Amino acid sequence: MRRLLLGLALAIGYPAAILLILATLTLAARYIQARFFHAPLAPERLAEKDAYLAGIRAADPASAPNFVVILFDDLGWGDLSSYGNRLIRTPRTDQLADEGVRMTDFYSAAPVCTPSRAALLTGRYAIRSHTQHMVFFSDASPIATLRRMLGLGNELIRDEILVSEALQAAGYATGMVGKWHLGGVPGHRPNDFGFDFWYGVLWSNDMTPLHLYRNQEIEERDARDPGTWTGAFRDADTDRGDGLDQRSLTERYTREAVAFIERNRERPFFLFVSHTFPHVPHFASRQHAGSSAGGVYGDVVEDLDRSVGAVVDTLDRLGLGERTLVIVTSDNGADYNGSPGSLRGRKASTYEGGQRVPMIARWPGRIPAGVVSDGLGMNTDLFSTLLDEAGVPAPSDRLIDGRDLMPLLERGAPSAHDVLFYTSSWTGRIDAVRDRRFKYRASTADFGRNKPQLWRMDADAEAHNLIALHPEAAQRLAGRLETERAAQVENPRGWLEPGS
Amino acid sequence: MRRLLLGLALAIGYPAAILLILATLTLAARYIQARFFHAPLAPERLAEKDAYLAGIRAADPASAPNFVVILFDDLGWGDLSSYGNRLIRTPRTDQLADEGVRMTDFYSAAPVCTPSRAALLTGRYAIRSHTQHMVFFSDASPIATLRRMLGLGNELIRDEILVSEALQAAGYATGMVGKWHLGGVPGHRPNDFGFDFWYGVLWSNDMTPLHLYRNQEIEERDARDPGTWTGAFRDADTDRGDGLDQRSLTERYTREAVAFIERNRERPFFLFVSHTFPHVPHFASRQHAGSSAGGVYGDVVEDLDRSVGAVVDTLDRLGLGERTLVIVTSDNGADYNGSPGSLRGRKASTYEGGQRVPMIARWPGRIPAGVVSDGLGMNTDLFSTLLDEAGVPAPSDRLIDGRDLMPLLERGAPSAHDVLFYTSSWTGRIDAVRDRRFKYRASTADFGRNKPQLWRMDADAEAHNLIALHPEAAQRLAGRLETERAAQVENPRGWLEPGS
Repeated sequence: MRRLLLGLALAIGYPAAILLILATLTLAARYIQARFFHAPLAPERLAEKDAYLAGIRAADPASAPNFVVILFDDLGWGDLSSYGNRLIRTPRTDQLADEGVRMTDFYSAAPVCTPSRAALLTGRYAIRSHTQHMVFFSDASPIATLRRMLGLGNELIRDEILVSEALQAAGYATGMVGKWHLGGVPGHRPNDFGFDFWYGVLWSNDMTPLHLYRNQEIEERDARDPGTWTGAFRDADTDRGDGLDQRSLTERYTREAVAFIERNRERPFFLFVSHTFPHVPHFASRQHAGSSAGGVYGDVVEDLDRSVGAVVDTLDRLGLGERTLVIVTSDNGADYNGSPGSLRGRKASTYEGGQRVPMIARWPGRIPAGVVSDGLGMNTDLFSTLLDEAGVPAPSDRLIDGRDLMPLLERGAPSAHDVLFYTSSWTGRIDAVRDRRFKYRASTADFGRNKPQLWRMDADAEAHNLIALHPEAAQRLAGRLETERAAQVENPRGWLEPGS
Repeated sequence: MRRLLLGLALAIGYPAAILLILATLTLAARYIQARFFHAPLAPERLAEKDAYLAGIRAADPASAPNFVVILFDDLGWGDLSSYGNRLIRTPRTDQLADEGVRMTDFYSAAPVCTPSRAALLTGRYAIRSHTQHMVFFSDASPIATLRRMLGLGNELIRDEILVSEALQAAGYATGMVGKWHLGGVPGHRPNDFGFDFWYGVLWSNDMTPLHLYRNQEIEERDARDPGTWTGAFRDADTDRGDGLDQRSLTERYTREAVAFIERNRERPFFLFVSHTFPHVPHFASRQHAGSSAGGVYGDVVEDLDRSVGAVVDTLDRLGLGERTLVIVTSDNGADYNGSPGSLRGRKASTYEGGQRVPMIARWPGRIPAGVVSDGLGMNTDLFSTLLDEAGVPAPSDRLIDGRDLMPLLERGAPSAHDVLFYTSSWTGRIDAVRDRRFKYRASTADFGRNKPQLWRMDADAEAHNLIALHPEAAQRLAGRLETERAAQVENPRGWLEPGS
């Protein structure tokens, strides 16, 4: 009798328990979506985008400058010798710094890949393009489906205007080499967003499958299955040639970048070299593996440094140096490997180490040589800087968060930003704000370690909460943060009334 | 009918689900206890301890040196000006460094309070005293009960031999001022472990109730209830005088420390000043609140610095300077507030920032002035150093992990440690090991970020995994780590066969 009752209890109890759990999860998911992921998409802005692009006048080929933006993936603030690294040698990138401006207080707009890249290309904080929540996942991964179910999206919205599109409309040759990470479905790849030419991969190199594309075609297929449910966590030691040979990636990217410059030497061009490394897993080129005192990570970064050298050498060899703005930066701070220098925190954190990144700008004749600037800048500024220099007006139907960097780079003008915001990629909300002297981190709960923090940026690495000492600074920055948070709730995508 | 069935399903399903969950939790708890918390206690060693203490000969009062150990709580490696802090001024502690040796590569034996203190007082890694698992909790907290249920213990085992007991047996006056954190039940308090005199608190200052003891009596009762189920997370802003007034703590400790020295000026003494701060919550003295550029944390540290000054001034005023070894250090790295300097990680981590701490030793006439040493040391060494200098032989029935620091301090001899081990306070297991040049972190899973890491300690802050570049070093250190792990599984408490 007892066994019968037990059997009955189990037979009913197990399914009942599972149903209860499922119901709870469903309700929780609905609540979470309603609470956090309510940003409205606005496909109706497509017409405004089309009108804007159609209204852009062609740049004068005789005077329009070229732009080369070299973006590293997960390179830490302390990973270049010019930023203090003692193991890794990066003479070619350091040389760029010697010939131009090196910024010490430059930020990615987000502490992880997708939102940072969206911000760089759109000139807007990631929430505007609804990319603020972590990263897009390979479409082969169930996470991609889950993201769509939750309303997070897994590809860049078509109504966004990218610097590549604006420059393409101005007659620039627009080329991209390397990693995209802004969507994989047709209609949302680099060639669909203003790049005449693309050679590279859709995803981070720990995601599968990692096909190598030349424009819309797969040039080299990755035979690997997603492997794990995340489609991620591909591992260097277990990756033995059944997929894309990542050892060759930096070299291939470099070859394609050089060829793009050579092909377009006679017209204005915009080249976006979006490296796969030093994102994990680390694959160094066969030729130089083992040569860096910084280990495999160092090998990978030194490969990238040689790539920078090859690109700049090509510009100089073709006599394009003085008409080309070259920018080198990173999409976010160092991951678990790599150096944040003296900064607190790493990738995925809104502490400095998550978002402060190297930034070197070189433009002989325009930008002075050997300058180190502690002016504030963010990768959203590249959009504004490139458009301004190309003589292309910014769109007027949407907020652009970036500012033209040239006054700062050219003549050391004060930063156009009085504050910069740090957006958590976990919550999609603004965590913190800084001005020239202070950084304020909002409370996550009014207790203990979650209380509001105020740090002096000139004196230590987010170590000592000075909120009681400088209440007026805390109040001022808290006000800015609250205002911006409220504005982002009100109008997350930053639409402006036409004509405003 | 459907409602009836649903009702039946719920009526049986809910209790069944709860029973299933409870059964699963019980089994899990049993598994966890069997798997991780199996260290045998050995009360039978009490007799050996008694025999050892009884066999200690009295030190010669004419020649036996005094010892003053000043321990800060959660002070980070970068929190003193002499260690590079740019906001906090610590002139008195820096002066000690100028008059003695400042160690750059000195470690607490654990990254949290209880195991670090146990290691300091016993000269043994925390696992030997079965204190390796996080911290003891106020007996008013259910966590204390839970710890006992899990076999983690919540008070120091009586069979351990403390430096205070050995020195007491040698005729030293032994005094302790400040925080204990090694157990609260009678028989496990400072006076029960060799301290003639104790004035202070049993627990961390975020735990309740926080009574102020003078020896076995409560001198000032803390009226606060435990408040939360952890008995912790007491908060500065919400603490308004219903409990102990923590603003006065550093000053009271100082007064008692000075009085102890004055009382015992004619005989050898050992004074352990175990400060409550800068552990959270932060309470600065009323007199100096708001005076530090380092905010409230800075105020608290500058209070501590003045306390160091007052203690040393007392020694010097009484003419005891040249016969007193003064040591200043911290029980673990900086918590969420405070500075780890350029190190990676913070409190509770086995990255450097969790365990590398300031260490300054001053002994005019014996220790040279103004020396900075990068020799390896650990707070277990204090046990050995003090016993050696007092002429007390070490116990022979148990492993002592500490080594005499005097050769290093006196004449810059190489460290007596060829390696030091880092023990996780989460798992109680050894995470990592370092020698002079390298640190090796064992794999937590053979994949991605969990893989074994090898860092060069002279070149960067645990940023670049050099395991592929220096396989021989990795193999050597991995061997040492595996050997020690195995030994700790075999004989966690480090008992030796009598006479071995």
